Amino acid sequence: MNPVQADLYPSRQHDEPSWQERLDPVVYRNDLANAPIAPELIERFARDGYLVIPNLFSAEEVAVFREELDRMRQDPAVAESGKTIKEPDSGAIRSVFAIHADNPLFARVACDERIAAIASFILGGDIYVHQSRMNFKPGFTGKEFYWHSDFETWHTEDGLPRMRTLSCSILLTDNEPHNGPLMLVPGSHKHYIRCVGATPENHYEKSLRKQEFGVPDHDSLSQLADRYGIDTATGPAGSVVFFDCNTMHGSNSNITPSARSNLFYVYNHVDNAAQAPFCGLSPRPAFVAEREHFEPLQIQKQKYL
Amino acid sequence: MNPVQADLYPSRQHDEPSWQERLDPVVYRNDLANAPIAPELIERFARDGYLVIPNLFSAEEVAVFREELDRMRQDPAVAESGKTIKEPDSGAIRSVFAIHADNPLFARVACDERIAAIASFILGGDIYVHQSRMNFKPGFTGKEFYWHSDFETWHTEDGLPRMRTLSCSILLTDNEPHNGPLMLVPGSHKHYIRCVGATPENHYEKSLRKQEFGVPDHDSLSQLADRYGIDTATGPAGSVVFFDCNTMHGSNSNITPSARSNLFYVYNHVDNAAQAPFCGLSPRPAFVAEREHFEPLQIQKQKYL
Repeated sequence: MNPVQADLYPSRQHDEPSWQERLDPVVYRNDLANAPIAPELIERFARDGYLVIPNLFSAEEVAVFREELDRMRQDPAVAESGKTIKEPDSGAIRSVFAIHADNPLFARVACDERIAAIASFILGGDIYVHQSRMNFKPGFTGKEFYWHSDFETWHTEDGLPRMRTLSCSILLTDNEPHNGPLMLVPGSHKHYIRCVGATPENHYEKSLRKQEFGVPDHDSLSQLADRYGIDTATGPAGSVVFFDCNTMHGSNSNITPSARSNLFYVYNHVDNAAQAPFCGLSPRPAFVAEREHFEPLQIQKQKYL
Repeated sequence: MNPVQADLYPSRQHDEPSWQERLDPVVYRNDLANAPIAPELIERFARDGYLVIPNLFSAEEVAVFREELDRMRQDPAVAESGKTIKEPDSGAIRSVFAIHADNPLFARVACDERIAAIASFILGGDIYVHQSRMNFKPGFTGKEFYWHSDFETWHTEDGLPRMRTLSCSILLTDNEPHNGPLMLVPGSHKHYIRCVGATPENHYEKSLRKQEFGVPDHDSLSQLADRYGIDTATGPAGSVVFFDCNTMHGSNSNITPSARSNLFYVYNHVDNAAQAPFCGLSPRPAFVAEREHFEPLQIQKQKYL
């Protein structure tokens, strides 16, 4: 057990939004020459709060992942697992959580050194999976996802004390500018925007579909966009997007025929494991936010073909 | 009065969607050397069904238009005119129709030779304004607009007999890939997709906010996108997008802080004036679709500064 830490990033406690500077490093190791990727890429992650590495997985590997993903979306056991998010209108499966724990193939992907070694280097040591999921954003009816900092939620609702967490999204479809790709504000990870209002009980049931609390205010978003601009994470299937836990991001809707899917892993440093939520409410369920199993991931070469 | 024409483009009459080829020219004049713009641009319009001309209006002219647009959005007389579309949630004005008739400044813009002479060349002679509006798509909450061919509606609900009509959108804000710009399927204007179902009475009241009828089916859209791809009309404020009445287009939502606004004019050839709607119902109101005033536009040089 790590010692209990004070709330250094308070949010949802006042009626007016406010900003504070980030108190934590972005990249925890300084010996960039030892990084598993080019030092310039690590520096870019530190500066922008995200990094896209094209074609980290091959087309053949992507095909294996997509086949499993399609199988899961048809599997009644998955649909009834209670670990899915469905489209409000059609009931189709949009996300399946805890794939690093429940799915043997995607558990191996979580440990794949091509992604986990990068996460471990940036976060400076042993890591575990705080959350994982596969996402399927359908064509024609893909809904938007409003701007947010993941850390604001993971800190307030899950009890992650410090910014020592990052997300890794493995693109299983081509992400183009017009099919609702991830948008990010480069540099936004250096500022923490305290949101207004309180957190309702069982907020997660709604928030995974549509954010209503922990939402940054218009003025703050405008300031961020004016200062830093907005970038779009596009790339062919097999590319991987790494982004810091506090990088402001969101996505527009997708009316194009092109569905989008990805595998999503959130890595957290073991010294930053979840404690009691800082909002004072019950924690979100374990399939959304790991609360017990903080053993370090065994990072390894993986083969899927 | 033009002679009454038969329904050469039936739609909303069957339970299954179907396609037919376009029966009409895209560009009605052959003497491209006499075009008011480079012949290559006219050829591009013929091929793709649209054309973006950057910076056709100056930044100073755009400022004049935006000032008038901001004034209109605050004007109680405009809000109560019955010719506006408001945001479902906030009630804020999203569109004001019939600006070519009601607003002296925007009536002059309709006649501006920089746009109207191009429309007149493409459509092959005298033109009038079938519809006009100013559009304001707010930042943060800009809603998507689903795929459609304008002609499908203008033919079925307004009674325009043939494809001899085009739209001209004057961008008053920068249109970037991520703030919900117009998406178009190049080449789609050569195919007419007959939609399924019937048209309900007073459909226009809803359809201007959200299309539910006259909506192309998923299979047809997928076929079009596979065959032709999807392009995005981006450009700085002052740019103009011309697009054919039958070009498939739509737009995603806009969660970025950047609002988008434009002036929108639909030019129709006088020989193609509205007759009784082909769906057999009452026509849409005159502020949405001109039914009486088919006098040719007096195309002229205009000065706004």
